[in-house]
Amino acid sequence: MIENIRIVLLGTTHSGNIGATARAMKTMGLRSLYLVAPKAEPCNDEARRRAAGADDVLENAKVVPDLLQALTGCGFVVGSSARPRSIEWPALSPSAAARKLVAVAATAPVAVLFGPERNGLDNNDVEFCNALVTIPANPEYSSLNLASAVQIMSYEIFGQLKENPTVITTDPRLADPVQLRQLYQHLAATLDELAFIKSRSSTKLLRKFVRLLHRARMHEDEVDMLRGVLTAIQAVARSSKSDNP
Amino acid sequence: MIENIRIVLLGTTHSGNIGATARAMKTMGLRSLYLVAPKAEPCNDEARRRAAGADDVLENAKVVPDLLQALTGCGFVVGSSARPRSIEWPALSPSAAARKLVAVAATAPVAVLFGPERNGLDNNDVEFCNALVTIPANPEYSSLNLASAVQIMSYEIFGQLKENPTVITTDPRLADPVQLRQLYQHLAATLDELAFIKSRSSTKLLRKFVRLLHRARMHEDEVDMLRGVLTAIQAVARSSKSDNP
Repeated sequence: MIENIRIVLLGTTHSGNIGATARAMKTMGLRSLYLVAPKAEPCNDEARRRAAGADDVLENAKVVPDLLQALTGCGFVVGSSARPRSIEWPALSPSAAARKLVAVAATAPVAVLFGPERNGLDNNDVEFCNALVTIPANPEYSSLNLASAVQIMSYEIFGQLKENPTVITTDPRLADPVQLRQLYQHLAATLDELAFIKSRSSTKLLRKFVRLLHRARMHEDEVDMLRGVLTAIQAVARSSKSDNP
Repeated sequence: MIENIRIVLLGTTHSGNIGATARAMKTMGLRSLYLVAPKAEPCNDEARRRAAGADDVLENAKVVPDLLQALTGCGFVVGSSARPRSIEWPALSPSAAARKLVAVAATAPVAVLFGPERNGLDNNDVEFCNALVTIPANPEYSSLNLASAVQIMSYEIFGQLKENPTVITTDPRLADPVQLRQLYQHLAATLDELAFIKSRSSTKLLRKFVRLLHRARMHEDEVDMLRGVLTAIQAVARSSKSDNP
């Protein structure tokens, strides 16, 4: 599946960008890099340095002399284009392109094609593409670095590969309304013992507290923690009172 | 609005990454770059070369000595984290983080914080953050280049800006990191006086508290209210102590 997704760089002029592309791909789980007639050394020091730990992707890159050899067998090819074109061509957003690439990659190779740094794909190259993708950008400065464009497309592909958007939280158990109610009562009693409320509008203060805690969507263990603190405050308040009758 | 969205790089060690960050930001319309105690020259040849046409962003970057100065006044701070953490912290996906950043930026400055290249943010830095964002990545190689991570977050923010050009929130004034930090110090001192912490892992307890309060995105008047309560607790604790020598 993932092996079916190719990143194809055409006529790249900077070794650093080839290395950085390898790194961008690997962070998103992609491995299949094609270099079509590169104008820069693909495996020099600069490329390796920018590849960081992704030198395996760099070393396994396939260097081919023309576009056809990189795209043979592909069921879907998307060309990356920074600017609107004089020739009309089907245009997809990055996420729509990623969705289609991933869907087709289930059964056939697919490719995302990036042109040379300075000028991008020319009209002949575009004819190899089923669609073009344009990364939305600042209209006054849309000049994404080549590896940055690969990073964004790889990120969108990775998002599509994961059925469910990654949720990193381990979601601890949220406190239920009964636990929260008990906490609020405990809080009210404690504030009362502190004699903090008396000089103020007690109901209003308590309501402010409750609203704040509600907003935090408290976990069970946090309710326990807070009640522990409240109990400690009460103990101190009581001992202070019994000493000052 | 866009001026309210800050990219904050902490302790960056490579000039090239600072330049590439400026470029990544500018392609997505962002302009406000803060460099906290950079360990590399922010405007040397390498930085300028990688900034390409974004040298204006680079030259206008604010270099400050500590994190607080970069975050003062911020209503929402997201820290970028490559790895899962031992301490739990609210975690957002890049798009959820962008949505929240853009919403808050309608009325207050916000920041996306990136740590040093090698190790990222440490736990002290994380305490300045309302939430963490982790860019979904290959679990076997999640080492995104710094500027690539900035590119993806800027891309997500740009996407949200296009969707909600104007977000009007009636949100009351949010407490800024300085006010929050003072509150946490007050809380630590109070818990200490209560002699509540001693028997436990104090740092862990306090961090739990901070996390809970962070999640609530406290308003200024709520910080005042809580500090009023803390002062009352301290008064009672002190009178109890002076009576029980």
